[in-house]
Amino acid sequence: METDTITAISTPIGEGAISIVRLSGPEAIAIAAELFEGKDLLNVESHTMHYGKIMDPDTKEIAEEVMVSVMRAPKTFTREDIVEINCHGGLVTVNRVLEILLAKGARLAEPGEFTKRAFLHGRIDLSQAEAVMDLIRAKTDKAMSVALKQMDGRLSALIQRLRQELLETVAHVEVNIDYPEYDDVEEMSHEMMREKTKEVHAEIENLLQVAKQGKILREGLATAIIGRPNVGKSSLMNTLVQENKAIVTEVPGTTRDIIEEYVNVRGVPLRLVDTAGIRETEDIVEKIGVERSRKVLKESDLILFVLNNNDEMTEEDVKLFEAVQGLEYIVIINKTDLEKKLDLEKVKQLAEGNPVVTTSLIEEEGVDELETAIATTFFAGEIDTGDLTYVSNVRHIQLLKQSKQALEDAMGSLEMKMPLDIIQIDVTRTWEFLGEIIGDTASDSLIDQLFSQFCLGK
Amino acid sequence: METDTITAISTPIGEGAISIVRLSGPEAIAIAAELFEGKDLLNVESHTMHYGKIMDPDTKEIAEEVMVSVMRAPKTFTREDIVEINCHGGLVTVNRVLEILLAKGARLAEPGEFTKRAFLHGRIDLSQAEAVMDLIRAKTDKAMSVALKQMDGRLSALIQRLRQELLETVAHVEVNIDYPEYDDVEEMSHEMMREKTKEVHAEIENLLQVAKQGKILREGLATAIIGRPNVGKSSLMNTLVQENKAIVTEVPGTTRDIIEEYVNVRGVPLRLVDTAGIRETEDIVEKIGVERSRKVLKESDLILFVLNNNDEMTEEDVKLFEAVQGLEYIVIINKTDLEKKLDLEKVKQLAEGNPVVTTSLIEEEGVDELETAIATTFFAGEIDTGDLTYVSNVRHIQLLKQSKQALEDAMGSLEMKMPLDIIQIDVTRTWEFLGEIIGDTASDSLIDQLFSQFCLGK
Repeated sequence: METDTITAISTPIGEGAISIVRLSGPEAIAIAAELFEGKDLLNVESHTMHYGKIMDPDTKEIAEEVMVSVMRAPKTFTREDIVEINCHGGLVTVNRVLEILLAKGARLAEPGEFTKRAFLHGRIDLSQAEAVMDLIRAKTDKAMSVALKQMDGRLSALIQRLRQELLETVAHVEVNIDYPEYDDVEEMSHEMMREKTKEVHAEIENLLQVAKQGKILREGLATAIIGRPNVGKSSLMNTLVQENKAIVTEVPGTTRDIIEEYVNVRGVPLRLVDTAGIRETEDIVEKIGVERSRKVLKESDLILFVLNNNDEMTEEDVKLFEAVQGLEYIVIINKTDLEKKLDLEKVKQLAEGNPVVTTSLIEEEGVDELETAIATTFFAGEIDTGDLTYVSNVRHIQLLKQSKQALEDAMGSLEMKMPLDIIQIDVTRTWEFLGEIIGDTASDSLIDQLFSQFCLGK
Repeated sequence: METDTITAISTPIGEGAISIVRLSGPEAIAIAAELFEGKDLLNVESHTMHYGKIMDPDTKEIAEEVMVSVMRAPKTFTREDIVEINCHGGLVTVNRVLEILLAKGARLAEPGEFTKRAFLHGRIDLSQAEAVMDLIRAKTDKAMSVALKQMDGRLSALIQRLRQELLETVAHVEVNIDYPEYDDVEEMSHEMMREKTKEVHAEIENLLQVAKQGKILREGLATAIIGRPNVGKSSLMNTLVQENKAIVTEVPGTTRDIIEEYVNVRGVPLRLVDTAGIRETEDIVEKIGVERSRKVLKESDLILFVLNNNDEMTEEDVKLFEAVQGLEYIVIINKTDLEKKLDLEKVKQLAEGNPVVTTSLIEEEGVDELETAIATTFFAGEIDTGDLTYVSNVRHIQLLKQSKQALEDAMGSLEMKMPLDIIQIDVTRTWEFLGEIIGDTASDSLIDQLFSQFCLGK
């Protein structure tokens, strides 16, 4: 495969201690060596680091004091020669180094192009490449764990096994069709085909069943807090934020804005919708208007609906019950420290089987129960990322659904005793859909589009 | 020197392709080796990189797929053992790795602590350490070049030479005082002392003369654009921005907000004051009020004062001339494409020797002349960062001024024929002030304070 040499700044843009400019391709070492004052990079061992200076070829002046890492193909991320130039972290210096590399013949990498090369050169498959990006964007430990496992090839291995089984089945059929006279080839009976498709179907169904959870882990649960004014919505928000510090709060330098959006409840990342709105006005509906609030509710994965134990149910409460009908919600009866005026039976009736939790947020009571309710609404208690293979990517879920449909088509034809070479078409389609997940049967344009969503320098 | 092992995230915080967690100290390699699944880091060569995984000791799960660099003391930045863990660039993963390292006994580094260790272990002196930070914060190529030279030790070498000369002079005097009977020791005459102090004084004065320019290169020239409404202030701003793209505009991912503040005119970084204000209202004075605008003017290093060629001078213009009296300003007579109604002689008279430039911004005329005027107001034409040693740091300038004053005290005493051992006290003070620049005679609290201004992980 003929490729050029690409380069990009691979660290986040900003003032920091270290910034990395990365080069990959056949000329990577030669270009770096020409600009480097220090050891002769052409003759250093692979996977070694060297202190020196990058010289500006025009002005003959020092462009930057650097630490250069040389990694030779094929034991690298892209399976090409890679040079990483670690600079002091300023915007101007790093950019200057990049400009010099471009002037010397490297090409500015497209977003995701390093990872794309790793994929094209067979180091990782498509689902692993996508996991790299998921890892970068992970908002909680659990999401990170899912991505790491996918990157480690766990999903890939499972998909490959399913494809292999389908392929062997199809091969048997082919042999039977092409050489019906061969007695030593076991005849592929409808019964055997039925057994095999049923087996694979069950595994795909299982993957899809936990996929919803995987998607939540990856993207966070869009959560809206609703209720009449003064029922305790902002207390609830504060309690959730305080009790469950999002992991990112502990990252130095992160602004509070980023943090407040993600609250980590027992590993379930809640993405609180319109947080600022609630904090300021105590009333999401009031602030954003009824129309938009309905839209917000529709787009929420979870609604926390707060009622006041100390008030009789109002018309407004009933309207809110109507608004959340059919959605995933938890009713929170707050202010149990005050006199009970709310009719619990009525609430349970209106809640139609959704969880009802009682709390006194001011006395920090009932919070545990609430968190359990949140966790069990989407997961059976504690989330177990240890053994399950989660499919968290929308593209993967879509392809799994298509695979399942194609298999069901095959199973239907089997029931109707259609000829095996017809059934085989649907089985092959299933095999192809599964292949798209790991990139075996993915089109070039799909691949381009996927990698373009990556960040620059990755 | 007994030290513990420190760690921090050394890349800017954000989503990027690579993030680095750095460890430095006697336990750096041992801590990393314990958590690393891959080669035995305790037995690898110095300055080598190794692919593997960081394992979470609690969950026994993979915490991150990493590339680990091992650098053994003393040939490292801190002169201690350093381990750099290159992670995929997500917030959560990097933070997890950091947490695991902290749990294993590393201490979170204070801002600048890595560079501080480089200083304390004698790898760099204080002025070089400060240059590291200047480099990171550099806004233009020229500023970067000044910082790089300072980091390279050019200023340090000059200061050290001056100190050496003073030290030798003082030593001679000491010998003469202690052993007046030794004939072979040349007697330190007042004449010789006068010569030496004069020589050093001239060099310090020279450094201070170019220091103003160095400070501008480092911090940018605070520039205000003033004038009546509709004289062409926003055209001027747009012309400057368009003709002189700040280098940072080419850095991918930088927001426009950052960029617009710095405009690079022939290597002189202009920091445009209240840019947004001018853009929106076309009138800085109108928008921010007369009182505050006076304050803005006072704090500006340069004022671009725009007049309309097509109008006679108004009372408002005259008032603006009064407001800028005694400040550094350039008068720009704009709209020369329209009929001349402004009295040029009157303008020149009011301008009191400040440059007067005529432009037609709409026809892009006179822009070159304006830029020349800006550059020559602070520099003699093009800036030459090649040969000059610029002092750009306020602390350094202050110490140079104190050195100069102490030397002048000595020179005064010499004129008055005071005894040499009295004069020597002032010479020693000069030697001490100069020493503070490079950190030889700096106090611990000063050092702590200086490094605390660094970014984390540096």
